[in-house]
Amino acid sequence: MTTLTTIEIEPPYLLFIGDMDYELDAKTAFGIAHWRPELCLAQLRFGTEVDLGLPDMTPKDAVAAGARSLIVGVAPVGGSFPESWVESLLEAARSGLHIVAGMHTRLDQVPGLSEAATEGGVRLVDVRTPPTHIPVGTGVKRPGRRLLTVGTDCAVGKKYTALAIEREMHARGMKATFRATGQTGIMIAGEGVPIDSVVSDFISGAAEMLSPDNEANHWDVIEGQGSIVNPGYAGVTVGLMHGSQPDALVLCHDAARTGIDGWDGYDVPEMPTLIDLYLSMARLTNPAVRMVGISVNTSSLDRARGEAYLRELEDRMEMPCVDPLADGVGRIIDQLLPRAGT
Amino acid sequence: MTTLTTIEIEPPYLLFIGDMDYELDAKTAFGIAHWRPELCLAQLRFGTEVDLGLPDMTPKDAVAAGARSLIVGVAPVGGSFPESWVESLLEAARSGLHIVAGMHTRLDQVPGLSEAATEGGVRLVDVRTPPTHIPVGTGVKRPGRRLLTVGTDCAVGKKYTALAIEREMHARGMKATFRATGQTGIMIAGEGVPIDSVVSDFISGAAEMLSPDNEANHWDVIEGQGSIVNPGYAGVTVGLMHGSQPDALVLCHDAARTGIDGWDGYDVPEMPTLIDLYLSMARLTNPAVRMVGISVNTSSLDRARGEAYLRELEDRMEMPCVDPLADGVGRIIDQLLPRAGT
Repeated sequence: MTTLTTIEIEPPYLLFIGDMDYELDAKTAFGIAHWRPELCLAQLRFGTEVDLGLPDMTPKDAVAAGARSLIVGVAPVGGSFPESWVESLLEAARSGLHIVAGMHTRLDQVPGLSEAATEGGVRLVDVRTPPTHIPVGTGVKRPGRRLLTVGTDCAVGKKYTALAIEREMHARGMKATFRATGQTGIMIAGEGVPIDSVVSDFISGAAEMLSPDNEANHWDVIEGQGSIVNPGYAGVTVGLMHGSQPDALVLCHDAARTGIDGWDGYDVPEMPTLIDLYLSMARLTNPAVRMVGISVNTSSLDRARGEAYLRELEDRMEMPCVDPLADGVGRIIDQLLPRAGT
Repeated sequence: MTTLTTIEIEPPYLLFIGDMDYELDAKTAFGIAHWRPELCLAQLRFGTEVDLGLPDMTPKDAVAAGARSLIVGVAPVGGSFPESWVESLLEAARSGLHIVAGMHTRLDQVPGLSEAATEGGVRLVDVRTPPTHIPVGTGVKRPGRRLLTVGTDCAVGKKYTALAIEREMHARGMKATFRATGQTGIMIAGEGVPIDSVVSDFISGAAEMLSPDNEANHWDVIEGQGSIVNPGYAGVTVGLMHGSQPDALVLCHDAARTGIDGWDGYDVPEMPTLIDLYLSMARLTNPAVRMVGISVNTSSLDRARGEAYLRELEDRMEMPCVDPLADGVGRIIDQLLPRAGT
């Protein structure tokens, strides 16, 4: 029997936003509260108007109410912990809350926190740190069905699209599990593997671990990373894709994006070229893989232009093209159902 | 000014083969002695007939003769250090030789070796351990020319072919540097990056570091890793390729290989399909990339059959197809010269 050795986070959560003044800096906390309200018990903040819409609690109150983990749901500038937060985290650990964060500073480097965790009998969970003992990918086909979101670039909605697909599958009564591969995704899912932190020999093995054997009619909906045309990260994208063995790919795009963000001189290729590239690589571990739809963030356009953009794209690509926020992802999921007459 | 932070090994070498009874178990030592005789001063062995053709020396004798590093050139079963070797390594470190190894057991886990290294004022160099502070790949095109060996599978002659190409380029008076990406390659080159041990976010960045800016007519000849059709390692292959920005690819193959070794059910695809896949991915960071030849290990065939195999392959693929051991790699290098009339 194989044990799933992904990172695991124990719910329910006390979401820490500290003194962060801008909602955007607390986007991880907002993401967790939006996608997993059932895991969120309370928020911990001081001196800020930013509000997740959850009850305010001290760590002690939260423990009394049943909370098991404090999640640092903010990304401070520079990625390290301000002094003003440290006392809160120490109190939380001593009170019996596991401490979960995904910042560049490791939790065991926060002064006093390891000792406080020992005192409180809790774990420090760095979601950037991959599990140990990841095997090399085997390429052996696993039972169950898998969908992977892939991108024209980084930060084009791969996580959002995967979460929206999982939610819509559940609404339809389908069996589905979101599989997280990035830090925010792992906090939302409560488990996962930070795929870009895995040693490169084990990328596809980590992806295999993340979506193990399942029932024939169960869908793993896997959060993609990077892009096959990103000069920095395409190796991660390919390894994740090979280990995921996707039956279905969904291409994610931002309508405002024409070049690879942060890589001057690299353009986003034409969609047919990009789709061919994804499929030609994905066929290695699943020859039956299909591109089933395109999920576009059209927030840079007004609604009429956004709709025109999607219509034009759909005519050209001959597959459902949707803005997941405006249109939902139902038309993409329709592509996964057994086809009439088959 | 960028500092090249690859692993570096100080020559000349005392090659350690200990009590290894079989030449195959000492293939790393034989590889170093074959490809870099100018770096090899002596051998250290006890109770074995295996012979690199170098003078036998104790660590003290070797230091007196000018040796700077002891290289563990053997791969013992299980990958850890037998008790009988430890005393030799301690003596070598105390005598002033840097200790270099690429086994699963880290050198600082060998009892007493860290202390002996401090005493001798030497470094312990684990060639499996990548350098720190590797940046994310930038995709910025670097001056100089680059050739990358790629494979139909693992262990099909990518290192051998790259070393043979470097040697032949030098014989022709061309400027060329072999760039090592695996443990044995790093020991042969005296520097390099163990690309499969790098955290996956930094694969292409590590490859960029490995072949920095160079003169316009200088060739970096880069040792490939894995295969684009290996379900375990293709992510490494792609990241290495993107960071290498190769002008030229050479496809390496073993005539005896029909399936991906160790991955049941995975066949080596037809060569045209495989070449298309490599080129379509490599074009991202170098749109002018070409496949310039095929290097085949035909040792499983008798010479007549080997020649027929290569003739048939060459007719079909319309590029030079050679066995590097039997034919040399000159005809592949001819493809890199400025073409008549251009």
